[in-house]
Amino acid sequence: MAARDDRDEITQDDLREGMRRVLAGPKRKSAPIAEGELEKIAYHEAGHVVCAELCENHENAQHVTIDPRGQAMGFALFGREDRALHDQTHLHEAMIAALGGRAAEQIVFGRVSSGAKNDLEKVNQIARAAVTEYGMSTRVGQFVADERFISNETKAVIEGEIERMVADAYSDALALLGAHRTQLDELTRVLIEARELERVDIVAALGSLPRWDTERKHSGPGSSAALRPAA
Amino acid sequence: MAARDDRDEITQDDLREGMRRVLAGPKRKSAPIAEGELEKIAYHEAGHVVCAELCENHENAQHVTIDPRGQAMGFALFGREDRALHDQTHLHEAMIAALGGRAAEQIVFGRVSSGAKNDLEKVNQIARAAVTEYGMSTRVGQFVADERFISNETKAVIEGEIERMVADAYSDALALLGAHRTQLDELTRVLIEARELERVDIVAALGSLPRWDTERKHSGPGSSAALRPAA
Amino acid sequence: MAARDDRDEITQDDLREGMRRVLAGPKRKSAPIAEGELEKIAYHEAGHVVCAELCENHENAQHVTIDPRGQAMGFALFGREDRALHDQTHLHEAMIAALGGRAAEQIVFGRVSSGAKNDLEKVNQIARAAVTEYGMSTRVGQFVADERFISNETKAVIEGEIERMVADAYSDALALLGAHRTQLDELTRVLIEARELERVDIVAALGSLPRWDTERKHSGPGSSAALRPAA
Amino acid sequence: MAARDDRDEITQDDLREGMRRVLAGPKRKSAPIAEGELEKIAYHEAGHVVCAELCENHENAQHVTIDPRGQAMGFALFGREDRALHDQTHLHEAMIAALGGRAAEQIVFGRVSSGAKNDLEKVNQIARAAVTEYGMSTRVGQFVADERFISNETKAVIEGEIERMVADAYSDALALLGAHRTQLDELTRVLIEARELERVDIVAALGSLPRWDTERKHSGPGSSAALRPAA
Amino acid sequence: MAARDDRDEITQDDLREGMRRVLAGPKRKSAPIAEGELEKIAYHEAGHVVCAELCENHENAQHVTIDPRGQAMGFALFGREDRALHDQTHLHEAMIAALGGRAAEQIVFGRVSSGAKNDLEKVNQIARAAVTEYGMSTRVGQFVADERFISNETKAVIEGEIERMVADAYSDALALLGAHRTQLDELTRVLIEARELERVDIVAALGSLPRWDTERKHSGPGSSAALRPAA
Amino acid sequence: MAARDDRDEITQDDLREGMRRVLAGPKRKSAPIAEGELEKIAYHEAGHVVCAELCENHENAQHVTIDPRGQAMGFALFGREDRALHDQTHLHEAMIAALGGRAAEQIVFGRVSSGAKNDLEKVNQIARAAVTEYGMSTRVGQFVADERFISNETKAVIEGEIERMVADAYSDALALLGAHRTQLDELTRVLIEARELERVDIVAALGSLPRWDTERKHSGPGSSAALRPAA
Repeated sequence: MAARDDRDEITQDDLREGMRRVLAGPKRKSAPIAEGELEKIAYHEAGHVVCAELCENHENAQHVTIDPRGQAMGFALFGREDRALHDQTHLHEAMIAALGGRAAEQIVFGRVSSGAKNDLEKVNQIARAAVTEYGMSTRVGQFVADERFISNETKAVIEGEIERMVADAYSDALALLGAHRTQLDELTRVLIEARELERVDIVAALGSLPRWDTERKHSGPGSSAALRPAA
Repeated sequence: MAARDDRDEITQDDLREGMRRVLAGPKRKSAPIAEGELEKIAYHEAGHVVCAELCENHENAQHVTIDPRGQAMGFALFGREDRALHDQTHLHEAMIAALGGRAAEQIVFGRVSSGAKNDLEKVNQIARAAVTEYGMSTRVGQFVADERFISNETKAVIEGEIERMVADAYSDALALLGAHRTQLDELTRVLIEARELERVDIVAALGSLPRWDTERKHSGPGSSAALRPAA
Repeated sequence: MAARDDRDEITQDDLREGMRRVLAGPKRKSAPIAEGELEKIAYHEAGHVVCAELCENHENAQHVTIDPRGQAMGFALFGREDRALHDQTHLHEAMIAALGGRAAEQIVFGRVSSGAKNDLEKVNQIARAAVTEYGMSTRVGQFVADERFISNETKAVIEGEIERMVADAYSDALALLGAHRTQLDELTRVLIEARELERVDIVAALGSLPRWDTERKHSGPGSSAALRPAA
Repeated sequence: MAARDDRDEITQDDLREGMRRVLAGPKRKSAPIAEGELEKIAYHEAGHVVCAELCENHENAQHVTIDPRGQAMGFALFGREDRALHDQTHLHEAMIAALGGRAAEQIVFGRVSSGAKNDLEKVNQIARAAVTEYGMSTRVGQFVADERFISNETKAVIEGEIERMVADAYSDALALLGAHRTQLDELTRVLIEARELERVDIVAALGSLPRWDTERKHSGPGSSAALRPAA
Repeated sequence: MAARDDRDEITQDDLREGMRRVLAGPKRKSAPIAEGELEKIAYHEAGHVVCAELCENHENAQHVTIDPRGQAMGFALFGREDRALHDQTHLHEAMIAALGGRAAEQIVFGRVSSGAKNDLEKVNQIARAAVTEYGMSTRVGQFVADERFISNETKAVIEGEIERMVADAYSDALALLGAHRTQLDELTRVLIEARELERVDIVAALGSLPRWDTERKHSGPGSSAALRPAA
Repeated sequence: MAARDDRDEITQDDLREGMRRVLAGPKRKSAPIAEGELEKIAYHEAGHVVCAELCENHENAQHVTIDPRGQAMGFALFGREDRALHDQTHLHEAMIAALGGRAAEQIVFGRVSSGAKNDLEKVNQIARAAVTEYGMSTRVGQFVADERFISNETKAVIEGEIERMVADAYSDALALLGAHRTQLDELTRVLIEARELERVDIVAALGSLPRWDTERKHSGPGSSAALRPAA
């Protein structure tokens, strides 16, 4: 970046921009969007950020933007995770954060859009790995299929388990955002205003947000006890 | 175009022709059609135009013709859509407009023809994406299949949902055209006369047409409430 | 042709022969057939001709022969159709004409032969397109399958619809030929005698044959009302 | 042949040998067979010959041998058929003749051997063509499958029809040979003695054998009325 | 062999070794085996030999060894069979002999090992050919599948028939070895002692063993009447 | 190793390191792990070691480490097995040892992690071979499928048997570790302290551990009688 701008030093901003460029492509001057779509994109990205913030083990967003970059109309950048092993809770939280954008659209606009396509692919890959590689589904058990000879019945059971895990994560994402609508609205407001927020701005907008202890409150993927009152 | 015609200037018409040539191929001097087929082609194209005009969010036709061009016996050209996110309503309206040609044939001639082949392909692609990529079917949920291992049951559910979405859009297309038969007939009449209409001609033929608020009157793809009286 | 025969002019006959050669291959001096087979071949070709003649929208035969040509033991040549759109009636009639040869064998000899192989392929292709591309089956609806993921149930429904359409066309072919057996016999007689008939000979042999209005008398492919008495 | 034997003329025998060599490969000096196998091979070949002889429309054997030739331990050579069209009776008779070898083994030794492998392949190909290409099965009708999308149910129906046609032909083969056991034994006897018989020897061994009118006595493939007493 | 050993003559032993080398690979100086495994290997090979010896039509073992050779920990070499046709009895006996090793392990040690992997492959190939190529299964009949379009039901029936034939042969192998346990033990004893036995040693170890007439005592593959008392 | 360190002699340690490098890749200076993950990795590896130690026939661990090496976060190295034949007990024990890591995670932390992915693949391969190649499942019997034509029903039965065998081994692993929790904890403690243990250290940490006679106490794969009291 410095080279093109004819400056001598490489600044912190140059480094940031370099990383984001690698992750999501170069900034685009503009992208065609219809009236009202900017607000929808902002809520979508804010949904990702707020859900991640509320999940006990999930990395927080370091950056979020609604400026188009590469193919994306906006994106949120999370801290790099130093984790070697993922248990059911980690995977469940990853799915909640990934579905946070779609859940925000549903809560605020009463409908979802095609913008969650990549998020859906991601959560289905996580849930599929949990069921077919990590043995985390009770119904499928520790069975690992030979992909060439898998029976139709086993395929159907696997699909049912994946669907359930994804549905549970979406249910939790809806519950979390519903319970923190104020913060979702505020983060969206400043995001529309500034179009690009760093970690410090995100923290300022959200205020002090309680970490949601997914482990205590529910029993892994499959349960939707996010806001279940202590019995 | 100008080069071949030995003219010096590139006119607005040259630009238009260039774009249409790219989209549908060059004009053909003639194409073999049977007696009465021109009227059928005109009604088919007019059906697309009127349905699009009545849908609240759909782009309007800028041009419509019954002169053969490339493989098409006629075609309607819609404005370019500046939209990044498509929700259920947008997809439903896109299917209504695409099925407008077939619906017009059914209403006017009491039968459909092979001419809707490409339209059927298009609406099925839209509905399939809605069900399998955007998670817009309640029965399939947010499940995204791994195409290599999909069970027969899930295939059948997906097909049922696609069929339902397409059928609902067709039902709405029939209802819309049935309720605006006068405008359909008039547009067809001037189209047969002029063989080619620009936006201004279309507006003149249709007169003041109320935009149909698909959002208020039905609940997304799957419902056929196009003309349901307010309860 | 003229070149080989050492004649200077290209006659009308040369042109005809050229076209037939392109469509069915060169004439063969002889082909091995068993006793009685010539009559069967003649009835088969006459069946195609008579059925086409009786169908309201179908092109008439311009030429029919029982001289072997290419792979065919005989063939009937129909006028070129100038039609851009095919509705259910056109497809139904095309299937009736294609099954006319097999129907004639069944009526006259009480059994069918392997000679209808190509005809069966053709009518199944027509019916399959009607069901899977043109949306003309009520049971399948406007659904267009993604061929990679089609469920077994949908395959079975599609096959059932195809079978029904073909069976209805065959039923109509049988009815039409049964009701015009005299003409079928007469055309076969002159065909065996002359081995090759042009349009003028066909018309002479058939006499004045009423066009059968398939549209009024039945409701498209699937119904077998060819000879249903007016209720 | 003449060239190698250093003779000047090409005799009738040379021509015969040439044709047989093309059809079944060169004669083998010897082939390993177990005790008693020569008789089994002879009965197998004689079974083909007698069944063909008894079928009304089937070509008769011109030559039969139990000398090994190419891969075959013995073989029967039938007259070349000049037939363009095959109906159900022709196909049924072809299956009877092809199963005659296996039927002879069953009748004489009470069990069948692996020697009928090629015969089984052949009759299944005939029956499959009758069902899937010629439309000769009532249950499958005139349906011709698109091999890429055929449903499991249709596959099962097709297999059932093929199995039934083959079983009926085998049943007729057993009945025919059972009723003409004397001729079968006699032909086998002279075949073992001479190892190679020409048409004249076959006729001499069989005596005057009534042609079995398959057409009158049964209703095509599927019925096993070979020896049904006239009711 | 002679070349490497620097001897002038090719002995009978050289020829034997050459053939065995071709069939099973070169001798290995040693192969890693656990305590007690040599006895298991010896019983396995002896099981093959004794079963073959007791089957009426099966070739006898000419040589048996527990010295590792190529991939095998031991192997038994049978006489070359001069048979052109195989009936149900021959195939059943071939399966009994092939399963003799596994049956011996089961009888002597109460459990089977992975050492029968190749034997299981072989017997399943034999049974599959009997069912799908030779028409020897009553349930499948003379049906030969087109492998591209075989229905799930037919696959299941074929698998059931194969399983039954293999199970019957295994049952007979168990019965034969159980009834001749003394000979099995004695052959194993001398095999462990000598590690390699020729035909003369095998005969000496087994003493006079009655040939089991599989044909009289059971009705082909599928029945397990090996030791059924005469009723 | 010596070459790089500029030493003249190749020590015993050099040889060890060389072998481990081949098996698991080079040591990594560090790998990103989250807080508390080292303890989880240590319990996982200790679980493998303790289970193997308790299985009567399984080789013991010679080395165990929680230093990252290649792709692995830790690994246990077992003695090389000199065994030619594997019966049900051997396979069952191999599955118990392979599932020991996952079982330890479950017992100590109440949940499993993605770290058992490779272990699950391994045990499923073992169980699949037992069912489909070694004929060790009673329900599948001695049937070996032709992989191209296997019925859906057989696939389902095979999958059910594999799942049962794996579940039984996991059940035994849980029981063994539950009954020897003290040793598991102690081995984990010294492993975390030293990060790398040789055989002598493992023995010291475990003390005198009774060999569990899998053969007497249960009936092969499928039974979970690890700690069943003697009846």
